[in-house]
Amino acid sequence: MAQYIADRRDIDFVLFEQLEADKLCEHEKYAEFNKKTFDLLINEARNYAVKEVLPTLTEGDRAGGAIFDNGKVTVPECYQKPYKLLVEGEWVGMTEDPEVGGQGFPLTIGQAVIEYIIGANFAFAAYGYAGHGTGKMIEIFGTDKQKELYLKKLYSAEWGGTMVLTEPEAGSDVGNLSTTATPNDDGTYNISGNKIFITGAEQDLTPNVIHPVLARIEGAPKGTKGISLFIVPKIWVNDDGSLGEPNDVVCTGIEHKMGLKGSSTCSLTFGGQGKCKGVLLGEVNKGMQVMFHMMNEARLLVGTIGACNASAAYLYAVNYAKERVQGRDLDDMFNHDATPVTIIKHPDVRRMLLWMKAHVDGMRSLCYYGANLFDKIELETDEAKKDYMQGVIEILTPIIKSYCTDRGFQVCGEAIQCYGGYGYTQEFPVEQIMRDSKINSIYEGTNGIQAMDLLGRKMGMKKGAYFINLLSEIGKIVAQAKQNPALDQDASKLEEAVTRLSEIAMHLGSTAASGKIKEAFSFATPFQEVMGDVVMGWMLLWRAVIAAPKLDKIVGDKDAAEVAAKNKEAAFYLSQLKTAEYFINSILPGTIGKMNAIANTNDAVVSTPEACFMG
Amino acid sequence: MAQYIADRRDIDFVLFEQLEADKLCEHEKYAEFNKKTFDLLINEARNYAVKEVLPTLTEGDRAGGAIFDNGKVTVPECYQKPYKLLVEGEWVGMTEDPEVGGQGFPLTIGQAVIEYIIGANFAFAAYGYAGHGTGKMIEIFGTDKQKELYLKKLYSAEWGGTMVLTEPEAGSDVGNLSTTATPNDDGTYNISGNKIFITGAEQDLTPNVIHPVLARIEGAPKGTKGISLFIVPKIWVNDDGSLGEPNDVVCTGIEHKMGLKGSSTCSLTFGGQGKCKGVLLGEVNKGMQVMFHMMNEARLLVGTIGACNASAAYLYAVNYAKERVQGRDLDDMFNHDATPVTIIKHPDVRRMLLWMKAHVDGMRSLCYYGANLFDKIELETDEAKKDYMQGVIEILTPIIKSYCTDRGFQVCGEAIQCYGGYGYTQEFPVEQIMRDSKINSIYEGTNGIQAMDLLGRKMGMKKGAYFINLLSEIGKIVAQAKQNPALDQDASKLEEAVTRLSEIAMHLGSTAASGKIKEAFSFATPFQEVMGDVVMGWMLLWRAVIAAPKLDKIVGDKDAAEVAAKNKEAAFYLSQLKTAEYFINSILPGTIGKMNAIANTNDAVVSTPEACFMG
Repeated sequence: MAQYIADRRDIDFVLFEQLEADKLCEHEKYAEFNKKTFDLLINEARNYAVKEVLPTLTEGDRAGGAIFDNGKVTVPECYQKPYKLLVEGEWVGMTEDPEVGGQGFPLTIGQAVIEYIIGANFAFAAYGYAGHGTGKMIEIFGTDKQKELYLKKLYSAEWGGTMVLTEPEAGSDVGNLSTTATPNDDGTYNISGNKIFITGAEQDLTPNVIHPVLARIEGAPKGTKGISLFIVPKIWVNDDGSLGEPNDVVCTGIEHKMGLKGSSTCSLTFGGQGKCKGVLLGEVNKGMQVMFHMMNEARLLVGTIGACNASAAYLYAVNYAKERVQGRDLDDMFNHDATPVTIIKHPDVRRMLLWMKAHVDGMRSLCYYGANLFDKIELETDEAKKDYMQGVIEILTPIIKSYCTDRGFQVCGEAIQCYGGYGYTQEFPVEQIMRDSKINSIYEGTNGIQAMDLLGRKMGMKKGAYFINLLSEIGKIVAQAKQNPALDQDASKLEEAVTRLSEIAMHLGSTAASGKIKEAFSFATPFQEVMGDVVMGWMLLWRAVIAAPKLDKIVGDKDAAEVAAKNKEAAFYLSQLKTAEYFINSILPGTIGKMNAIANTNDAVVSTPEACFMG
Repeated sequence: MAQYIADRRDIDFVLFEQLEADKLCEHEKYAEFNKKTFDLLINEARNYAVKEVLPTLTEGDRAGGAIFDNGKVTVPECYQKPYKLLVEGEWVGMTEDPEVGGQGFPLTIGQAVIEYIIGANFAFAAYGYAGHGTGKMIEIFGTDKQKELYLKKLYSAEWGGTMVLTEPEAGSDVGNLSTTATPNDDGTYNISGNKIFITGAEQDLTPNVIHPVLARIEGAPKGTKGISLFIVPKIWVNDDGSLGEPNDVVCTGIEHKMGLKGSSTCSLTFGGQGKCKGVLLGEVNKGMQVMFHMMNEARLLVGTIGACNASAAYLYAVNYAKERVQGRDLDDMFNHDATPVTIIKHPDVRRMLLWMKAHVDGMRSLCYYGANLFDKIELETDEAKKDYMQGVIEILTPIIKSYCTDRGFQVCGEAIQCYGGYGYTQEFPVEQIMRDSKINSIYEGTNGIQAMDLLGRKMGMKKGAYFINLLSEIGKIVAQAKQNPALDQDASKLEEAVTRLSEIAMHLGSTAASGKIKEAFSFATPFQEVMGDVVMGWMLLWRAVIAAPKLDKIVGDKDAAEVAAKNKEAAFYLSQLKTAEYFINSILPGTIGKMNAIANTNDAVVSTPEACFMG
């Protein structure tokens, strides 16, 4: 099973060049690193993921997953050893500064690390990585004392951490929450309320779990403006860092889910005995700002999970298609004596595989590009350039989150299809990967909410300048591709799609501005999807721009396909040209059609009376 | 839970008019029936499905589903009672002639019956309905003695039946099977081989199971032309109909599947002790002809399962969206004191629901249309008219099977999305319905195989005349719609899509004819999909054509939306106009784009060397 996690460095020769990732170590901040240390880390991550994490994927799903009994959760036994190694290997704090317990690697390199670990089993990895977000909030908004008490424990994953937002009634409408916080005399707060869908809140992996809890202090304004954030440890942490009394936080149950069964999704009651203590994190009534600060990175993570699931599913499918012998070659249609061939020879199987590969490669580049922008923004000293890049990541965040999880899920479904009946059975891992991946389009803001964020907030930022920044970045690659005769035509086709996209964007903007807000927003998701397709086309063309000269160099005046059959690097570079060609010629025309539908802006979704929604 | 199976007769006022279903009883064959007896039957089916079958849906999934132990299978205990009632109610033989144990209803009415029963729980229903196909084969190809021995037992579902095709190695390439049949002196055959994926082959519901087994008689030609079909009972049936000795058929295991867990998917060993006896069904080496004869009806059934899953998922989702309160109305975006609203008020949730409803309504009409054609073909005496209708059903069969199962699965996924995080949990049934539905795109010929059948076989039938028949039928509805000013524009848009579809069809045909067979077939699935969209547009426009005058009659010169808010019939008719408007204006433009991609016929899928398919 081990080989089915792709080797980012060994196989994806293009990716690191695309982002000039190795050049990061030329910067002062990363002076202690070099290409070799990057490679070493990525190889170590690969070993850990393949040897220790991947074997837990199936086992953690089968034996009932996480088990709840009387307030306690037992995770699958097979998670215990790799969790210890997760802590020992310092994998979670990888990209944090050494002074807060990290190893100081750039996020771009961290992306390669998490791609291995998440790709191996996210149900397991979630126990460690959820706490990273908790740590981040405390690092940015916490007091020195809070940092001292919690930070290293969270970044090391010695303690677990969570993100406690959702309530049974409020759901996605966080501003409507009803958990309360009442000030105590000692500066702490008394927390009271019920929360649901809290990943890893209860488990038997760590001695403590730190909950950042959204709650309303009595008398605070309604809606999101009256929400504060509190640190609520499962076990109280004394001033000297030692563990005190158990806090009044009770896990009342876990969800039985379609997938991610090894990961505990907990319902929590805070202050059921009136004794739940928390401390304020950040300022009063500014809790949502902390959450928003976390959002881009958290959404990049979820997009990455979607892309990782897809990558794993594709790799299983392509391997199966190369081994499974069935049916005659179409060229031998009328020759009943012909030997059966591997199913990858069949055009429809290849179509599925090329569709999957195009998406997997494009989504991978997109997620790494996001992480890389975070690095570059941090390193940049010119404020205008910083803002420019921030603009690109603001626009791309909902795309990364939604596109990689929607298409990621579809890739998983297509992998099952490649297996035929076997894919539906638990003999092969693809059915589980699809089940695991379905949640990605829901959590961390449903993809519908991403679309609202994109159309309602991001597109208008800086009067649309951020969107223009994205178009400029795409334009750069189009211009480069046009200089290569092999890519010129595809570049023009992508350019047409980009032009149409900006027309559609203007159109939806003016539709909303003219008072037809609901009509415009009924196309928020289709708009998000077509923008995602254009971004895919960009990423794939970018890969092709890098690959084309390298392929030429290896192939010379020989036949590229023949060289590729024997030379792995040539095959890889050629595959970049092919995925770009395929996506731009066979997928993007459908996208243009969908853009035409958006331009129509038919109002049936809005004008259909509620009574019409029936059987 | 009961109310979430749609009432075909109470709610879908249009469907029966669309097909003039009630007029069937004017025909001599159905003289004993009338609209009332049809209604009575459908209501009985509804009661049975809702009260007896639906409650088994979740229970049959949770408790491990069907259990295998030492050659025996125990089905979920809750299946026992409804199975007895399935037999008592004579639900399986409903549409068969009374002289073979049926009730003689038209297939159109049977479609309404199975929609209820399948929609309630197909994992359960499969135990009874699989035997219907077995009976059909024996009815058409069996000897009088075989009919006497097996037919009533199978149509009554007193005995189970199967369809034994797949072998571990051959898979979809049935012609490559290796099960053998050796003639015995007494006219029986000795059967030997291993088969997999046999639905309901072993269970504890019936005293016997009849297996129609594909096998090769020694010396027979290679490929599908050397395959014969044998009746192999689990328990030997004596000449007087009494049960004899157990046959040498052993269930060696069942699959652990993503869904349909209550249905046993069996591996069988025939003749492990060298003592498996079977009798020839039909002629030597003509086994595949029997199978092909069954195919259209079997594929209609699978398409119907896909549509039923979608219908159930949609109904749950729409009901949830009307009850779940969350978030402010978009019109109150800036008013923080506004009361939260039900999520059906949110444009993106409505978009999902209208997309789902359009597909569910269209797929339902399509499946009923298929069943109705079978009825009409049977009743028709004019051979030319018979052949004309046969042509339409030949073309539509792969569309019904693939489109209703692919889109059906997507509808189930969208239902989960409507529920948000709850949809991913087993607290609600939508996650199970999606898991159950994933197999539909695979069995009874994967959807890729349907696409090969459509492009490679069906399109060329009678030199393309059958495809023209379909276009003529669509043209009739377009012409009718053009006479209604409310539908005129949408009719023209559908007409454009139909024109483009026939261009694409010609183009793919000439591409294949010019030697680029693989290039053409690499677009078989996209072609099948766009044809499916056009067919959906047709079905929805057809519904709108019927609904429009009825709506006018109720509404008069009042506002349709206001009337619809209080009048259920008006709401239903209006919803028909809305789904057609939505689909034609917001989905079909994307379809046109996909057709443009097919017209491009980029060859990347074929020309990408195998070595390029890597991580």
